[in-house]
Amino acid sequence: MSSQQDKKSTDSLTSPLLGNGTLCIVGVGLISGSFAIALKGKGFVKHVIGVSRTVETANKALALGIIDEALPLADAVKKSDFIYVAIPVDATVGIMQEIMDLITDQQIVVDAGSTKFVLCESLKAHPMRNRFVASHPMWGTEYSGPEAAVSNAFMGRACVICEKEYSDPKAVLTVENIYTELGMNLIYMDAQSHDRHAAYVSHISHITSFALANTVLEKEKEEDAIFDLAGGGFESTVRLAKSSPAMWAPIFMQNRENVLDVLNEHIAQLRKFKACLEKENYDYLNELMVNANKIKRILK
Amino acid sequence: MSSQQDKKSTDSLTSPLLGNGTLCIVGVGLISGSFAIALKGKGFVKHVIGVSRTVETANKALALGIIDEALPLADAVKKSDFIYVAIPVDATVGIMQEIMDLITDQQIVVDAGSTKFVLCESLKAHPMRNRFVASHPMWGTEYSGPEAAVSNAFMGRACVICEKEYSDPKAVLTVENIYTELGMNLIYMDAQSHDRHAAYVSHISHITSFALANTVLEKEKEEDAIFDLAGGGFESTVRLAKSSPAMWAPIFMQNRENVLDVLNEHIAQLRKFKACLEKENYDYLNELMVNANKIKRILK
Repeated sequence: MSSQQDKKSTDSLTSPLLGNGTLCIVGVGLISGSFAIALKGKGFVKHVIGVSRTVETANKALALGIIDEALPLADAVKKSDFIYVAIPVDATVGIMQEIMDLITDQQIVVDAGSTKFVLCESLKAHPMRNRFVASHPMWGTEYSGPEAAVSNAFMGRACVICEKEYSDPKAVLTVENIYTELGMNLIYMDAQSHDRHAAYVSHISHITSFALANTVLEKEKEEDAIFDLAGGGFESTVRLAKSSPAMWAPIFMQNRENVLDVLNEHIAQLRKFKACLEKENYDYLNELMVNANKIKRILK
Repeated sequence: MSSQQDKKSTDSLTSPLLGNGTLCIVGVGLISGSFAIALKGKGFVKHVIGVSRTVETANKALALGIIDEALPLADAVKKSDFIYVAIPVDATVGIMQEIMDLITDQQIVVDAGSTKFVLCESLKAHPMRNRFVASHPMWGTEYSGPEAAVSNAFMGRACVICEKEYSDPKAVLTVENIYTELGMNLIYMDAQSHDRHAAYVSHISHITSFALANTVLEKEKEEDAIFDLAGGGFESTVRLAKSSPAMWAPIFMQNRENVLDVLNEHIAQLRKFKACLEKENYDYLNELMVNANKIKRILK
């Protein structure tokens, strides 16, 4: 945490340094690691403290130079100007409560979770609520752990900020400034809308990809054939099936109503393809695919 | 077609030129265009004749320098050493019959279709069957038309050759030599096995992608939200939904039994995810995803 003198640098136009320049990342993985690399690269922070469940992960992150120091949660939070939480969304709810009980009104707490409603609800009544900014940088890869962290992540992607009206305006401005410097496009939503949209444009893609991997593993007993034959199309649709269950199971559970809604629709859409093939209805099959082509209008 | 003297150059070790060096591509699009560019680049051919259903496409290919000449089918076939057919798989069956009726035993005919059984069956009794080599280069993009053709396509991908025992060994050798020069890995199969494997590692990916696009277009009425929020995960799972219905509907229909088989399995797998969410069965959800992770073992 910053002394009064250092605090001035946060407000200064000449330096982007956040307070004393100390960042705490809770969870040391793909997102937080990439975030730490980026913030140091941009001069927002000078010192990164990592909080990890396991010594192995902390040591890996230290060896990779992603964090400068590994500390227990309470010590790390107390020493930091900016606390960034990127762990599975179910664990986030509990840890965030601990963090919020520790901070002063000079610190900023941000999460990077893929669901927002449960977390925002859990913090609504917290006396320090206004030091928290709920965010979801919509970037990721199918890999996890500190070794998956990359520089130049986040660039060109959307970042959703939820319920900013409950956050201190200067804290929001700081977070906006950081994500903008990282090249992200800011979008504002209430937590419920975020979760609904996220089910459509992210969570369902992961479910279909996991299910597709299981389908092929079930049907295609000749694994050599998959390996030999799989082209770019298969790889791109099944890529997300490599994602971490520890990260994604809690997302699906926390957002289960929205995910179920879109999953039911997806199964209904697949049944239409099935009916076309069963009845050899070429015209309807063609129509379904022409309709799907409309996605071109929306994506690039 | 080649004179006796030029024919020698085919057998020469010093030049890869195929006969007189004339290639005919039937269908002037992504696959055939990329094939023509590659064959000219590697010195296999000097002159490319395009056969197209529409004058517009032929003119586009001429303007792009992908073909040197556009001719009707019969004229094009008669002038060519090597005939490469890459059109929708239903149209292929009829046109292939016409081509096979026109050729001599100095010419080689190859198709690039994504299904093999129906075509191979249709040519089984043809007196010129041994001049035909059934192939499926497993490369493609979601784009179509001559403007989608690229140099350095095919590289590093699998190419299946089917039922080579019915083809002239020297013709097979020529085709193997071409695909190998293009950087492809050759795999040999009977046509039925090919179609079964192709349903698993290619056709189902396209169906899920088309259905996913329809799901999101149906549920997410706020198209701006898709555009703003869609991250890399969504883009990669839905990318194939941009594919050409004219190309893919006949593939699904010709391979409908295999596609239905794997589609039924895929719907069953999605229902397992649905049941987990409905019953809040976290352990089983996790188990499904851990199983899906096994795809890592197979892909890269």
